[in-house]
Amino acid sequence: MLPHDQEFAALKEKLLTMSSLATTAIQNAIKALVERNDDLARQVEQADDQLDALEIELDELAITLLARGPVASDLRTITVAMKITHDLERTGDEATAIARRAVDLNKEPQLKPYVDIPRMATMALEMLNDGLDAFVSRDTARARGVLPRDKEVDALNKQLQRELVSYMVENPATITRCLNLMQISKRLERIADHATNIAEEVVYLYEGRDIRHTGKDAKA
Amino acid sequence: MLPHDQEFAALKEKLLTMSSLATTAIQNAIKALVERNDDLARQVEQADDQLDALEIELDELAITLLARGPVASDLRTITVAMKITHDLERTGDEATAIARRAVDLNKEPQLKPYVDIPRMATMALEMLNDGLDAFVSRDTARARGVLPRDKEVDALNKQLQRELVSYMVENPATITRCLNLMQISKRLERIADHATNIAEEVVYLYEGRDIRHTGKDAKA
Repeated sequence: MLPHDQEFAALKEKLLTMSSLATTAIQNAIKALVERNDDLARQVEQADDQLDALEIELDELAITLLARGPVASDLRTITVAMKITHDLERTGDEATAIARRAVDLNKEPQLKPYVDIPRMATMALEMLNDGLDAFVSRDTARARGVLPRDKEVDALNKQLQRELVSYMVENPATITRCLNLMQISKRLERIADHATNIAEEVVYLYEGRDIRHTGKDAKA
Repeated sequence: MLPHDQEFAALKEKLLTMSSLATTAIQNAIKALVERNDDLARQVEQADDQLDALEIELDELAITLLARGPVASDLRTITVAMKITHDLERTGDEATAIARRAVDLNKEPQLKPYVDIPRMATMALEMLNDGLDAFVSRDTARARGVLPRDKEVDALNKQLQRELVSYMVENPATITRCLNLMQISKRLERIADHATNIAEEVVYLYEGRDIRHTGKDAKA
């Protein structure tokens, strides 16, 4: 047993709290859009504040742990936890941005039924949860399973962007709504990017192989 | 003198190399747009690959330094360096995205003279360089000077987004070009966000006060 096992457990627990908050924030942001519910959208910003506070707490805890001179394997776990916490905090930012766009969209009649967006959200959320589970359970196969799904989300986003451009061209009165939906789609694609970052970090941590940036072409 | 002063110097040197590469990448991306030069745009992607590789190298070096059980102040410097390197790597991604949009834009006649975009780029670059200089010279006043400029870049971006929406509404034939310019403006705004992150980290490092997320409303 390591002397700082308790703090280590606290670190993982904070990460899981962040992951659960981020998940709820994304779900609420999409629900706010689909159900045209502005109250739910406002809840997302509160969750974002909590995520910001937790990021700072987790960073402090990580630095305390690092100051004790951990063994090499724990050291990597701690630095990876710091990276994951940053990605989770960023997904909170994306959820807030989605919620704000949803509030904008709720002011006008709905442009079309939302099919692809909830689908992208479900995919991104599964990727995020698999990445976190892979970290906690040291399961690199699960982490590797996240990676190919990033391309699927990218493809869905690109398809939706194209579709929305054609809407705008056909009917300029839809431009504002289309731009809001394009932003939401883009933000979901970025949540999938964060999940991919997490999965890559987990592979790096447990397999010692750095696979960051190897599949990056589709991202920019 | 610390026993690992040499590695410490190497860490700072790698950061400065990354900063210089990121600066050139952003400058070239904007030049590729303004001068309609596709060759320059392609050079940006090469710089981005170098930035990716340097991020991994710097991370490894940081972990080596952390494994030696540094004193508390050095420990914070190292973790902040890891965060800065990540922000610099991300500015490379933004530059690549700008360059790709420039190539797209170069296929069509120029929509209007580019005034605000080069101005935003100059501001974002100054913020980035000030943030890095503040880190290296331990100058928190300089770091604090970066923070208010983020709001100026945000305002310029918002103004440009609005202007481009009105272009699209008036003339749907400009939609593709407007969307590309909107993306470039957004990416510049995000480079300013990265510069702000860096400046906030530097303030945190040398003043011990965490000011992250305190001015965030304008970002999402």
